[in-house]
Amino acid sequence: MTTLLTTSDVARIVAQQGPSQVFTGMLDYLLADFLRWQEFDKCARVASHSTTGVIELMPTADHELYSFKFVNGHPNNPQAGLSTVMAFGALAQVSTGEPILISELTLTTALRTAVTSALAARALARPDSRSMALIGNGAQAEFQALAFHEVLGIDTLHLYDVDPAATRKLENNLALTAPSLRIRRFDSTADAVKGVDIVTTVTADKAYATILTADMIEPGMHINALGGDCPGKTELHADVLRKGPVFVEYEPQTRIEGDLQQMPADFAVTELWRVLTGLAAGRQSARDVTIFDSVGFALEDFSALRWLRDAAARHGIGTRIEVAPRLQDPKDLFGVVRAVRQGQTVLVQR
Amino acid sequence: MTTLLTTSDVARIVAQQGPSQVFTGMLDYLLADFLRWQEFDKCARVASHSTTGVIELMPTADHELYSFKFVNGHPNNPQAGLSTVMAFGALAQVSTGEPILISELTLTTALRTAVTSALAARALARPDSRSMALIGNGAQAEFQALAFHEVLGIDTLHLYDVDPAATRKLENNLALTAPSLRIRRFDSTADAVKGVDIVTTVTADKAYATILTADMIEPGMHINALGGDCPGKTELHADVLRKGPVFVEYEPQTRIEGDLQQMPADFAVTELWRVLTGLAAGRQSARDVTIFDSVGFALEDFSALRWLRDAAARHGIGTRIEVAPRLQDPKDLFGVVRAVRQGQTVLVQR
Repeated sequence: MTTLLTTSDVARIVAQQGPSQVFTGMLDYLLADFLRWQEFDKCARVASHSTTGVIELMPTADHELYSFKFVNGHPNNPQAGLSTVMAFGALAQVSTGEPILISELTLTTALRTAVTSALAARALARPDSRSMALIGNGAQAEFQALAFHEVLGIDTLHLYDVDPAATRKLENNLALTAPSLRIRRFDSTADAVKGVDIVTTVTADKAYATILTADMIEPGMHINALGGDCPGKTELHADVLRKGPVFVEYEPQTRIEGDLQQMPADFAVTELWRVLTGLAAGRQSARDVTIFDSVGFALEDFSALRWLRDAAARHGIGTRIEVAPRLQDPKDLFGVVRAVRQGQTVLVQR
Repeated sequence: MTTLLTTSDVARIVAQQGPSQVFTGMLDYLLADFLRWQEFDKCARVASHSTTGVIELMPTADHELYSFKFVNGHPNNPQAGLSTVMAFGALAQVSTGEPILISELTLTTALRTAVTSALAARALARPDSRSMALIGNGAQAEFQALAFHEVLGIDTLHLYDVDPAATRKLENNLALTAPSLRIRRFDSTADAVKGVDIVTTVTADKAYATILTADMIEPGMHINALGGDCPGKTELHADVLRKGPVFVEYEPQTRIEGDLQQMPADFAVTELWRVLTGLAAGRQSARDVTIFDSVGFALEDFSALRWLRDAAARHGIGTRIEVAPRLQDPKDLFGVVRAVRQGQTVLVQR
């Protein structure tokens, strides 16, 4: 049988563990997998574009487990009462192909994206970073704020969003969840980023947007750019990318999807795993500008699904469902129909 | 909310409708989609190979619906009590990305594969075909036998499998389900195919096998070759493919995966949709040999998922699950965690 986790199931795991344990726990899984990057079967995600958005499949595998995520990106969804990003995915045994976990990944994508950002910033930002500007205060914002608070010790947040209601929602949620965070609202991106150590951009518009321009970037800043993650969807002016070394998850995918899509094919970037394993340098001085051009990669979902599988087992959360039946005779698939008709079962009870 | 269909759910639909209605009903959905082939966003499936098998993702979309299937192929699985092929998949709205159906596709893949074979044979085999050899009597065999019986009026089956127990299982199932079928067992492929109108090969070995050789092929035969469906996995000797026109589902995929993988890149083939729409000729005379080199294409799962969606609604079968939550405030994803902690719900009830 396969375990099914719904969004409420994942929310219960998060509520029972608390944000601190969730972010640090999931970070351990991500780091462990990034450190063995070369063991993974990797490909750029498979995207299906429409006039309103994109639907993607993101598979990866090591020698033991296979994972994939189904995920959409539809920036106008909130106007129809739907989330911009919805996702689910699965974990399967490589040796047999049997799916062992099917899980919602809507909430989980927000968690793993924040953990990836924190993992990259811990390696690339100045160690004394305490303040962060958060540009884009939608569904992903709380997760970014809490992950940076828990993992990096960020204590001051500067907020800006074109939609003031989104900023109010973020402030209210953070006041309840992380009351020690100092929070200030701003009326523009330029004002919000002034003087901060880290700038996180997480905007949803599927367009060649210019959220950050070079004049806003100060020496020593770390830029955590998440929203340029799709062909035709960028956030950084090209000159921002020229301000310092650019780090990416999986170069072939980021060249197509990231802010990097604006740059020539020979524009130098460094894959994050090389910094994490010590093969490449990260930040070289306190005055360097470091840029993480993040688009989200299948490996992060692989790690998140591994974390979910273990957390669900530990908390006893999840439902067993039968999508890949264990038959008494594996060659007698038709027997399932016959048995249902006769009110019998040919499924092996487990 | 998303509807979930388990294998038992799909088996109940099949048991309630009966094989005849299932095969003819699903065939209408497949034909309707094949006739509008050019409306679909198509790509070869994305495969992850290991030493024991393969795991694949098969996406496609039209302007309204997106579908994908997760499916494995592990020929040694039955020895471990598992099915060779296990699958599940989903149907989503293109306009919003919302998944509307997640379903088992293990049983469904067997159904849609048989329906595709019957659809192709109805267009390519001699109209007076009444006998079929079935080489490979595993999990897929009953479905092939019943679909050809229901759709083409096949009344005589010749069976052969290297595993006599598989043949006995098939005979027993068919005796109960289609007692009017005349069935004969044979001790070799060569004996089984002698004098029949249609030869269906559906063997599981992941190897360059030679199930059919040119000397076995008689004038007027239709060859329905299913088991050569993966790089390194073939069933037909190359000379069999030279016996007559070869028809395929989606040429770029079949060149990589089908028996066609043995042939030069310029070996001529015709896509089935062109025959079905009248753009290309099928069989030209009663003495032609026609060959359907079938590997399974995402469009067939798309059609099957559409059929499942409608059948499940009609029969009131399926469970509602929440993997892509409808939030009261779509930008307040974090609210799910807060609400679970407070024992509240932020999900819109539908």
